[in-house]
Amino acid sequence: MKLKELAERVGAGVVAHGGIEISGVASVAAALEGDVVFAEDEENFTAALKSRAAAVIAGQFAHQAQTSKALLIVANPRLAFARAAGLLRGHAAHSGPIHPSAVIHPSAKLGNGVSVGANAVIGNVIVGARTRIGPGCVISDAVELGTECEIYANVTIYSDSRLGNRVVVHAGAVLGSDGFGYVRDPKTGRHDKFPQIGKLEIEDDVEIGANTTIDRGALETTRIGRGTKIDNLVHIGHNCQFGEDVIIAAQAGFSGSITIENQVVIGGQVGVGEHARIQEGVLLGGQAGVLPKKILRGKGVAFWGTPAKPLREYLRSLASLARLGKRE
Amino acid sequence: MKLKELAERVGAGVVAHGGIEISGVASVAAALEGDVVFAEDEENFTAALKSRAAAVIAGQFAHQAQTSKALLIVANPRLAFARAAGLLRGHAAHSGPIHPSAVIHPSAKLGNGVSVGANAVIGNVIVGARTRIGPGCVISDAVELGTECEIYANVTIYSDSRLGNRVVVHAGAVLGSDGFGYVRDPKTGRHDKFPQIGKLEIEDDVEIGANTTIDRGALETTRIGRGTKIDNLVHIGHNCQFGEDVIIAAQAGFSGSITIENQVVIGGQVGVGEHARIQEGVLLGGQAGVLPKKILRGKGVAFWGTPAKPLREYLRSLASLARLGKRE
Amino acid sequence: MKLKELAERVGAGVVAHGGIEISGVASVAAALEGDVVFAEDEENFTAALKSRAAAVIAGQFAHQAQTSKALLIVANPRLAFARAAGLLRGHAAHSGPIHPSAVIHPSAKLGNGVSVGANAVIGNVIVGARTRIGPGCVISDAVELGTECEIYANVTIYSDSRLGNRVVVHAGAVLGSDGFGYVRDPKTGRHDKFPQIGKLEIEDDVEIGANTTIDRGALETTRIGRGTKIDNLVHIGHNCQFGEDVIIAAQAGFSGSITIENQVVIGGQVGVGEHARIQEGVLLGGQAGVLPKKILRGKGVAFWGTPAKPLREYLRSLASLARLGKRE
Repeated sequence: MKLKELAERVGAGVVAHGGIEISGVASVAAALEGDVVFAEDEENFTAALKSRAAAVIAGQFAHQAQTSKALLIVANPRLAFARAAGLLRGHAAHSGPIHPSAVIHPSAKLGNGVSVGANAVIGNVIVGARTRIGPGCVISDAVELGTECEIYANVTIYSDSRLGNRVVVHAGAVLGSDGFGYVRDPKTGRHDKFPQIGKLEIEDDVEIGANTTIDRGALETTRIGRGTKIDNLVHIGHNCQFGEDVIIAAQAGFSGSITIENQVVIGGQVGVGEHARIQEGVLLGGQAGVLPKKILRGKGVAFWGTPAKPLREYLRSLASLARLGKRE
Repeated sequence: MKLKELAERVGAGVVAHGGIEISGVASVAAALEGDVVFAEDEENFTAALKSRAAAVIAGQFAHQAQTSKALLIVANPRLAFARAAGLLRGHAAHSGPIHPSAVIHPSAKLGNGVSVGANAVIGNVIVGARTRIGPGCVISDAVELGTECEIYANVTIYSDSRLGNRVVVHAGAVLGSDGFGYVRDPKTGRHDKFPQIGKLEIEDDVEIGANTTIDRGALETTRIGRGTKIDNLVHIGHNCQFGEDVIIAAQAGFSGSITIENQVVIGGQVGVGEHARIQEGVLLGGQAGVLPKKILRGKGVAFWGTPAKPLREYLRSLASLARLGKRE
Repeated sequence: MKLKELAERVGAGVVAHGGIEISGVASVAAALEGDVVFAEDEENFTAALKSRAAAVIAGQFAHQAQTSKALLIVANPRLAFARAAGLLRGHAAHSGPIHPSAVIHPSAKLGNGVSVGANAVIGNVIVGARTRIGPGCVISDAVELGTECEIYANVTIYSDSRLGNRVVVHAGAVLGSDGFGYVRDPKTGRHDKFPQIGKLEIEDDVEIGANTTIDRGALETTRIGRGTKIDNLVHIGHNCQFGEDVIIAAQAGFSGSITIENQVVIGGQVGVGEHARIQEGVLLGGQAGVLPKKILRGKGVAFWGTPAKPLREYLRSLASLARLGKRE
């Protein structure tokens, strides 16, 4: 892609050498000719100018720089760099569209340009155009995948799951598995399985990490909203309702029937009890624990600890505790 | 199944329209004709009567209801509904018994009606009647599976594992992997692997969640007792001895040589140290931590926090801490 | 193997019956003829002498024992037993070298004696001699595996990953997946993916547990040092730099750009924030949490709690808290 076009598409205001051809993104240390790098401050900018990169995305501070390198000046260099990477990555080509070793149900409806990896097993499903299904995946009957999804290797998707467009699912993830619900017989102490026959819906532009598990609804539907990003080894239980643009770090766990509103940010190893509600824009620090049925509210308000408290309050308790330990 | 037969089998005392044919269970919102729903209180009962369901399982409060719907009156509607679901689910049919792409050891002994999914790899094993092995599973040599087990896709079972009857294993679970045991050489600081050559035994009616891992014994046997239910992403280390009807929520972890007695309930993200013992009927709240060698006792007694304390004591400490934070 | 040779190779100082043939290791309870067992104290030694084992590895205390059993006397019986197990295990033979159902890229370079399990999918890779790749594994293009690695079933390795020699990877693990990095657009609240195009390097003699996930670098390289042992369901984020002979128990999580120096020991369910550094020989107790950018130091110094404090300090706080709870 010509640098000039790249600059326009990432909203960069100033360009030199717009005719240069750009082929990829890289770190300053690893950059080769043809790469674009980025710098958020003057120190990194100096290093970037010494790199082999063809062009540097930098902030306003770089406006007057004396250099022979091409510069893209933007308000937010990191964001522009991320967008440039997305544009340059495009939608990578596979070696072959449908590997002959894949086992595909004769009634499956695969859109144009769908690719299926070796030894994948595809039930009676609907798959949108240009979606890629990795080797070893098992996609059960009655699953719908949108267009331009990327399903990495060894993913399992149970029946009655529906993924939107451009959903990315990393290796080993399990989508639509049975929720964890039983009814205890008080006479015998044994547990009868409560039916886990609901659905799973994942909206557009969601990304799901490696070995993460998301359960189907019990009788209802588990839902993950548009643009939500989920890290590795996360567990999401049955009937959860997740909003849009939520961020969930690795190993967080959500028991069941939990509502997470838009723009919530969940730290690593956070645990949330059933029927809790985390309102829009709340931040939960790593390892925090939210009790069942609890409601947390406040855009941009951080909570921490178990049970989760507003950050300031929790830090005050920690400080008191430390002083107490020293006094006694 | 005729409603009358269903009523008898779930122990419902009162029935109208016993001749109706029932085909499945559903939520009140999603119910179609032929479905049975349940209601635990009058509010849900009113909604259930307005649904399209053919029949409603309800408590004694519904005894006198004026309705043209069929009613099943029981002491515990949720339990009866769960049982009805189990009866109606039956043992679902697969499209084919043994997929031609599966790779099966020539000496493997497969019982009547065993089904094996596409691209599964089955060693020299013994599999009981009507057990189903999903696509992409890898079952090593010297494994025994009982009758009517359901092994979902992409499960891996190491050698020397033995599963009872009606065991359910969700996708991506790993059973019988090596435990985590090393001996440190004090001279070099390097770690030699302690042998992990024991066995894994899982008794009847156990259910194991997606991407859960259960290690084989080091020299002995790891055991999971009858009827125990294990959620997703749980880790159970080598030599653990779990009793019957234990409930373990998602992402709980058990290091090794731990005893969990019958009817224990373990919350999500709980961690238990090696050689600990949790006695019969103890409840552990989410994220609780149990120290190595610790013994927790008391039927129905709840523990919480790290290190886990009796719930009342722990809540008192939390309250004191909160007051302290405010005072200072 | 002759007992005499085994004794020499594990550094045992005293032997009787050196000509006996030893075939394996076992627990005292399960030992058969031909097995060697070990005893660290007199009580276990007495039991070992009554077992069917051919030989007993024991400490100096056993020097004068009256017995017809063969004895190997060493300073550290557990370490000698672990080494004996390694020597006797050798490098177990597979039934066949490369299963015909495996799908292997025509340009892949496989060393002598490489074995590939059924339905594995191998890209354009380099694999060292005698490495074994289990059934159902997916190894992407541009991966290098050293010699004598053991990759168990259903493992996924993304492109640009490099494993050293004798690396063991348990079933379901995912290596080299995308890190979790996004740039939030403050105008829309949406998240653009930051490029995750770095590499993963795993050095010799590392062992990785079942369903563990290790992400590739964002622009740099994620590195796991020689001899480091990682348990099940661990998450290691992008750009982490782990030293040698590190021990990481199950379900621990490392967010990103974390440095773990040599000989660190990490308990189960520990969480470490981004850019933290754990210096050589530090011990972190189970469920401890380390804040982003925090540095912990001290060989042999134990830390516990969230945020992690020196153990003594943390225990003092816990004791104060308990007293406070009782007083009020």
